[in-house]
Amino acid sequence: MNIRPLYDRVVVRRKEEEETSTGGIILSGSAKEKPNQGEVLAVGEGKVLDSGEIRPLAVKVGDQVVFGQYAGSNTITVDGEELIIMGESEIFGIVA
Amino acid sequence: MNIRPLYDRVVVRRKEEEETSTGGIILSGSAKEKPNQGEVLAVGEGKVLDSGEIRPLAVKVGDQVVFGQYAGSNTITVDGEELIIMGESEIFGIVA
Amino acid sequence: MNIRPLYDRVVVRRKEEEETSTGGIILSGSAKEKPNQGEVLAVGEGKVLDSGEIRPLAVKVGDQVVFGQYAGSNTITVDGEELIIMGESEIFGIVA
Amino acid sequence: MNIRPLYDRVVVRRKEEEETSTGGIILSGSAKEKPNQGEVLAVGEGKVLDSGEIRPLAVKVGDQVVFGQYAGSNTITVDGEELIIMGESEIFGIVA
Amino acid sequence: MNIRPLYDRVVVRRKEEEETSTGGIILSGSAKEKPNQGEVLAVGEGKVLDSGEIRPLAVKVGDQVVFGQYAGSNTITVDGEELIIMGESEIFGIVA
Amino acid sequence: MNIRPLYDRVVVRRKEEEETSTGGIILSGSAKEKPNQGEVLAVGEGKVLDSGEIRPLAVKVGDQVVFGQYAGSNTITVDGEELIIMGESEIFGIVA
Amino acid sequence: MNIRPLYDRVVVRRKEEEETSTGGIILSGSAKEKPNQGEVLAVGEGKVLDSGEIRPLAVKVGDQVVFGQYAGSNTITVDGEELIIMGESEIFGIVA
Repeated sequence: MNIRPLYDRVVVRRKEEEETSTGGIILSGSAKEKPNQGEVLAVGEGKVLDSGEIRPLAVKVGDQVVFGQYAGSNTITVDGEELIIMGESEIFGIVA
Repeated sequence: MNIRPLYDRVVVRRKEEEETSTGGIILSGSAKEKPNQGEVLAVGEGKVLDSGEIRPLAVKVGDQVVFGQYAGSNTITVDGEELIIMGESEIFGIVA
Repeated sequence: MNIRPLYDRVVVRRKEEEETSTGGIILSGSAKEKPNQGEVLAVGEGKVLDSGEIRPLAVKVGDQVVFGQYAGSNTITVDGEELIIMGESEIFGIVA
Repeated sequence: MNIRPLYDRVVVRRKEEEETSTGGIILSGSAKEKPNQGEVLAVGEGKVLDSGEIRPLAVKVGDQVVFGQYAGSNTITVDGEELIIMGESEIFGIVA
Repeated sequence: MNIRPLYDRVVVRRKEEEETSTGGIILSGSAKEKPNQGEVLAVGEGKVLDSGEIRPLAVKVGDQVVFGQYAGSNTITVDGEELIIMGESEIFGIVA
Repeated sequence: MNIRPLYDRVVVRRKEEEETSTGGIILSGSAKEKPNQGEVLAVGEGKVLDSGEIRPLAVKVGDQVVFGQYAGSNTITVDGEELIIMGESEIFGIVA
Repeated sequence: MNIRPLYDRVVVRRKEEEETSTGGIILSGSAKEKPNQGEVLAVGEGKVLDSGEIRPLAVKVGDQVVFGQYAGSNTITVDGEELIIMGESEIFGIVA
């Protein structure tokens, strides 16, 4: 299964969490802090302007992005993997 | 009975829930988690822009769509079947 | 008495409730569930755009419409009959 | 004293309440239900559009209008008579 | 001291309260009901439109105006006299 | 240190509080009522319009201004002196 | 790692807190008041206007800026250093 996001939405795969915390303790479950970083897997066609025109997004497939704390609330499960779908406005920046 | 949605509204038939959970236990009633996925049955003419022009929707009849957790709250019963009517902005993406 | 709605407002006569529930029990009073469907009796001239122009409504007199759960809160009594007055944006679609 | 409403505001004289309820009981004080209907006594010049132009109102002096339940909260007392001043958007329709 | 209001703001001197209530009792302090009427002492240059142009106000110095119940909350004391400063949108109409 | 405010922001030095109240009692601490008046020390380049153009502010350096009760909440300390930074829309008028 | 902020976002390094308070007491932990001042490390391409055009930001890399009390809530950790990412509208002014 594959998702083609609508308009200004973006599908992001959250960066894998480090399995060890400082000091080398192995974390599991909710004790692992979810990093607000990930890779863009798919982008929508663009944002609809008041004029009805479409403005292409600034992020591209493959970009590593940083996003807001609450951006990760809408998740979809694709082939058993949890992905995040968010508006581009929830993305703070691109890791360069 | 058939519904012709107004403007940017879309009629969606929710995807049938899997009758078995992982491990093969048969679920029933509220124990079944409603999937946020479905098929588009009808689409409105389009979104009215500030200029008064109509912008056709991006989703089409037959599309499999993923939508937000709260998009399913407005339901209509057509010939005994519960369908969802939502704005296109509540649709995250199209399953490709 | 007759009402000529202003701008994008619409007067709707709620569809008569079925007097029998499944199983043939006759319902009365608040036990009857009000259906969110009705017939359009009158429509306003249209919605005022930002430009000041009027955009005619999509619904017409005689249309059978489906509307939101809370659209029915503004009622007017005309010749002893309770009618609903709502904005066109509260109408989900037209029954075809 | 006379009031000239500004822009899209309208002065309405509430319709006199029926002194008898069904069954002929004479009502008094708060027991009388205030009808949401009245006569337009004065109208503003029109609504200011984004462009700065004025769009004349749809209601006219002498119109019998129906208005929302909460439209009557701003009252002014002119020559001992309580009148309502409301925005035209609070008026549902014109009684024809 | 004199105040030149900015943009769409207006300085209003509240109408002096009647010293006697119906029946001739002399009122004092908080027992006196503040009338929502007053005289315009100064007006701003006008409202800034989206285009950046200025639209002159409809009220003029010397107008007797009626205003909303909560319009009087911003007061300034000029030469020992309490004046009200409000947006023109808080003025309902002009007493003619 | 000096602050150059951005866009429609303005730096204001609050007017020194009168040290004596009516009757000549010397006030101190929180008993002193902060006057909502001050002098403009710096102004931004102007307000950005929807079109992207900049509209210069109406207030100028040196103006004595009156502002709202809550306008003073954003303070910056410059060379040990507490200054207020506010949007021009929080300024009611200019003392002439 | 480096962050390229999107649109009107700005990356700011908070100014190091003074280690001694007035009187020379050394502060630690939460007793240290975080100054709302910092240096701009990176700026987005600009703000998207309604027309879809991009308006470049007013702040530049290297600017010392003053920002609002709540602007510092979105932090990102880059190479072990906590940086703030904020919209340009949260910046009050530039220290000159």
